[in-house]
Amino acid sequence: MSAVMTTQTAPQPADFAAVRATNLAVVLRHVRDAAPCSRADIAAATGLNKATVSSLVVELIERRLVRETGMTENRVGRPATMIVLDGGSYAAVGLEVGADHLTAVALDLAGGEVVSWRRAFTPSPRSVAAIATLAGRVITKVTGTGRTVLGVTVGVPGLVSADGTVRAPVLGWYDVDLAGQLRRALKREVSVEPSATLAARAEQRLGPCAGLENFTVVIADAGITAGLVVDGRPLHGAHGLTGQLGHIVLDPAGPPCACGLTGCLEAYAGIPALIARALPDALEDGPVVDFAPEMTRLLTRARLGDRATLDVLGDVGRRLGQGIAVLANLVNPEVVVLGGLYEPLAPWLLPLAQAELRLRSAAPDAGGCRIVASALGPVAAATGGAVQSLAAVEAGTLPAV
Amino acid sequence: MSAVMTTQTAPQPADFAAVRATNLAVVLRHVRDAAPCSRADIAAATGLNKATVSSLVVELIERRLVRETGMTENRVGRPATMIVLDGGSYAAVGLEVGADHLTAVALDLAGGEVVSWRRAFTPSPRSVAAIATLAGRVITKVTGTGRTVLGVTVGVPGLVSADGTVRAPVLGWYDVDLAGQLRRALKREVSVEPSATLAARAEQRLGPCAGLENFTVVIADAGITAGLVVDGRPLHGAHGLTGQLGHIVLDPAGPPCACGLTGCLEAYAGIPALIARALPDALEDGPVVDFAPEMTRLLTRARLGDRATLDVLGDVGRRLGQGIAVLANLVNPEVVVLGGLYEPLAPWLLPLAQAELRLRSAAPDAGGCRIVASALGPVAAATGGAVQSLAAVEAGTLPAV
Repeated sequence: MSAVMTTQTAPQPADFAAVRATNLAVVLRHVRDAAPCSRADIAAATGLNKATVSSLVVELIERRLVRETGMTENRVGRPATMIVLDGGSYAAVGLEVGADHLTAVALDLAGGEVVSWRRAFTPSPRSVAAIATLAGRVITKVTGTGRTVLGVTVGVPGLVSADGTVRAPVLGWYDVDLAGQLRRALKREVSVEPSATLAARAEQRLGPCAGLENFTVVIADAGITAGLVVDGRPLHGAHGLTGQLGHIVLDPAGPPCACGLTGCLEAYAGIPALIARALPDALEDGPVVDFAPEMTRLLTRARLGDRATLDVLGDVGRRLGQGIAVLANLVNPEVVVLGGLYEPLAPWLLPLAQAELRLRSAAPDAGGCRIVASALGPVAAATGGAVQSLAAVEAGTLPAV
Repeated sequence: MSAVMTTQTAPQPADFAAVRATNLAVVLRHVRDAAPCSRADIAAATGLNKATVSSLVVELIERRLVRETGMTENRVGRPATMIVLDGGSYAAVGLEVGADHLTAVALDLAGGEVVSWRRAFTPSPRSVAAIATLAGRVITKVTGTGRTVLGVTVGVPGLVSADGTVRAPVLGWYDVDLAGQLRRALKREVSVEPSATLAARAEQRLGPCAGLENFTVVIADAGITAGLVVDGRPLHGAHGLTGQLGHIVLDPAGPPCACGLTGCLEAYAGIPALIARALPDALEDGPVVDFAPEMTRLLTRARLGDRATLDVLGDVGRRLGQGIAVLANLVNPEVVVLGGLYEPLAPWLLPLAQAELRLRSAAPDAGGCRIVASALGPVAAATGGAVQSLAAVEAGTLPAV
């Protein structure tokens, strides 16, 4: 594929700067995928001529995005200096706000992990201050390694309006101006996205969905949300309000849901419902707000083959399959990835979820849809936040020199 | 916006033909939107220089895609000849297969209607022959007007695999190779798409959704299917198996559905269910296979304010709103258009559908989603089939000279 369009009729040398930025990004992406590589490799792979590649590489080195290695290529003729991404100059920061935790990840330009932290967190009126404090610490840590922060993206378990306002009932947040508050606290630009959308970005770059054009990530935390990727891009819909999988009503005669309806997927298969069903004693001191210890107990019982626990997990898997079938009938993803707190439970959830999906799909063979467990662990959404800034650079939005 | 990318570093004069085709399409689209217009208008609007525009217009005239009018522009200096689309040389053909009807539309390049036919139809083992016969007649009619057929696209009320195989239980079709059979019968290329996807194309070009990037068309025939447009493009998912809105289970304790489940949206709100509920006497001679006369009776009763009929329509609207709420919670469309046999019923369906959508949306104010009636009438899907071939031409796939 040629990176450049050109024409003999050449009407106007209009968008030279835009073409240059596009070509810088083309070279950067090639180095990411193929490093270490020589200037000649880049020219051969991108269709750009060698003089252009040399000029682009000079600029990328000046911008500290790539660097020359001591390595040379083993070949006939003059040895070629090899180029790799410069991991030491920049890092992108992602955070995830969960109902009982905050996660922070910083990745260098080559995708190397600079920071990976997890903190207990209790949503409260001062929640945003706690998030800003953690973000500030990550930024200090990153700049302390001599790197410049490329961008900060925060994932939340709820709906995000185009202006960054968040509605996340599981946090007790209604129309919280998270982006604005963090911008003021950190004195820098901050993006806010649904956690499931960020997890989908991470899966697309690093997980089993790498290269897939149509897939969905389902994240269980206090709620159940979905990040849909359609034709290779995250689905934002008309106003960014997508992926509310947890509030599909499976049975109007079902248990009450916090949203005010009855029989929502969340009321059967959300983590609070799962804990209440499998570990009723956990509720003796009031609602569970810290999921980690209960999840550990649940996993222990499942591994020991406790019949009551397995029955609950089987039913949760079945309900999850019913919700995923609705999604699959509408948008036909190739893969649905179970992430967040579903990930460790996946061995017990997947068989009945997949069976129910097949049973309820209008298309034969579930429209080709498979349900799999994430391989990215609990940092998926925060990682996706960092990936988002890396992707912006690779798409041509280069950091200021 | 400049139509051409060019660069000072000009690596290779690689894709001259591709750039030329792109620019031909750019000019063609501008003429479509702004006709009648002069060469100077085209140059000013597209950023192409005048010599290039003149050369492109000569080629478009040779290809019989545009023509000069007698008109000239009223202005100072030499009068400019005005250009319009050439409606007389080509036409695109669309057909829709319904459970009780076939529809055929042919549009000229300017979107003018050359053919608009509707025929009664009974799905049977010889269905495909009847469809081929109608398509053949449309092609004969179009060529009889001196026009060349640009393409033939057929919409079906079901799932279409990537290879054109159709699964449409409402027609009694399971894995019917419709595209292959029509190709052999007509001795030309034929595309097959879900009717709802084609209806969405028509709405995007001609209906109230013109210019919208995220909307959904819901078509009621014997089944209920949805055509989703996401980021301006029809959603095909991983394998083209999208939009099965009718088989969302609203209540597992609900009435049996033909699909084998219970309480599907179709079992409450599909046209056969609606007729059975509102006009139980219609079933005295067995299942209703011809909907038109029953729809007329239903509409008459609704207009006369018959309480039982209004109650059924209200409940159908409410169920439809429940199904649309699921869709809206997942993909956040700006507008949901009710088409097919819902269109004439929309005044009675919309109020309760919209109320239920609001009640069940996780996002405030239904995520901004409005439900509206189509304005395209029963030819929407067939029109969308024709629009698909016109769009291909306008995107640069010009007919062979």
